[in-house]
Amino acid sequence: MAFKVIEIKKSVLDCNDRDAEALRQELKAKGVFLLNLMSSPGSGKTTTLMGTIPALVQRGWRVGVMEADIDSDVDAHTISATGARVIQLHTGGMCHLDAAMTRQGLEALGTDELDIVILENVGNLVCPAEFDTGAAKNAMILSVPEGDDKPLKYPLMFSVCHALLVNKIDTLPVFDFDLAAVEQRARQRNPQLKMFPVSARTGEGMEAWVGWLDRQIRAWKEQ
Amino acid sequence: MAFKVIEIKKSVLDCNDRDAEALRQELKAKGVFLLNLMSSPGSGKTTTLMGTIPALVQRGWRVGVMEADIDSDVDAHTISATGARVIQLHTGGMCHLDAAMTRQGLEALGTDELDIVILENVGNLVCPAEFDTGAAKNAMILSVPEGDDKPLKYPLMFSVCHALLVNKIDTLPVFDFDLAAVEQRARQRNPQLKMFPVSARTGEGMEAWVGWLDRQIRAWKEQ
Repeated sequence: MAFKVIEIKKSVLDCNDRDAEALRQELKAKGVFLLNLMSSPGSGKTTTLMGTIPALVQRGWRVGVMEADIDSDVDAHTISATGARVIQLHTGGMCHLDAAMTRQGLEALGTDELDIVILENVGNLVCPAEFDTGAAKNAMILSVPEGDDKPLKYPLMFSVCHALLVNKIDTLPVFDFDLAAVEQRARQRNPQLKMFPVSARTGEGMEAWVGWLDRQIRAWKEQ
Repeated sequence: MAFKVIEIKKSVLDCNDRDAEALRQELKAKGVFLLNLMSSPGSGKTTTLMGTIPALVQRGWRVGVMEADIDSDVDAHTISATGARVIQLHTGGMCHLDAAMTRQGLEALGTDELDIVILENVGNLVCPAEFDTGAAKNAMILSVPEGDDKPLKYPLMFSVCHALLVNKIDTLPVFDFDLAAVEQRARQRNPQLKMFPVSARTGEGMEAWVGWLDRQIRAWKEQ
């Protein structure tokens, strides 16, 4: 090894877990499924939602969306075209949402007459993974142009997610990206992880993802 | 507007600025130029450095690199092939580097007989922008697949940088990406920003970027 490795220590302040669990139980009692969707900036969260929401509506689910962003409203504008109930959360520079912030958002959105609320978290592969939002399930998107080494570099994100969408597979011919390597690296951290190769742009693979999500909502409401 | 906008408040703890300024002055006195390189995960920081380092060495500069990552060593392994003095910083889950962490890294790397140290920050468009590392200059990479709306969504990052590399321009035919729109949106936040469209993969545009960096190092050492 031609270089030294330095471990910089982190100060941990974690009072979030109890809040998240309480919120999850409240949502469970109301029959509201909260999906926490995470990814890097620009991996296609909003485009994926534009394909996911109509498919959920078609299956009879009533959908709400919370768009978390540092500052802009561009994603909420885009999503509002689907007819879903949408709210924009401005985090004021914050890099993630915690359970208390998610609760603020849900109160402002209103969960009455909703079956699923999708939280589009801040575009960030690091911090959002550290904070349980109270979601029933976590999903993440990795897009092909980002590279197949990401499970090695952001292991916590891959560990805390139940579903991994590998997006922009229509660009596989353009990039040096090994889908099997991603699967193997991600499964090493998280053997239960469901992987869905998709192209939100072309619609390829979206049915498998929506089918999985549909089953999760159903199970959440039935249990 | 079909949705509400909620401002979530942030708690600010900022004791970093003095540390950063002190570090910058120490580096100035030693004639060491520190470049803080930031971007999303997968935008091509390491590949860009693989093209940048040999070009700097060719111009006579002695180069050191600090690779900050949550957990893995893959980037330091890659960079060590250039022959540059390399160190891997593990942030233990932290999403950014501050001035104190940067100082730890520089002490471990050793700055004697170096003209430029490049800090490859954690892949993240949010948190690293909030922490002055003590660098002489900040640069960021936005890659074409991430989309041209990023200056709207991550305004602070575009504000604190002196140079913007728009990477992966060889994939412009594949993505719906408006280079002029990025420039206009970024300049709105930061009129002084220098923009360099590049492809680290093909080498296109890299000369202009290295030329700019060369002038910055020269000015830093001469002043």
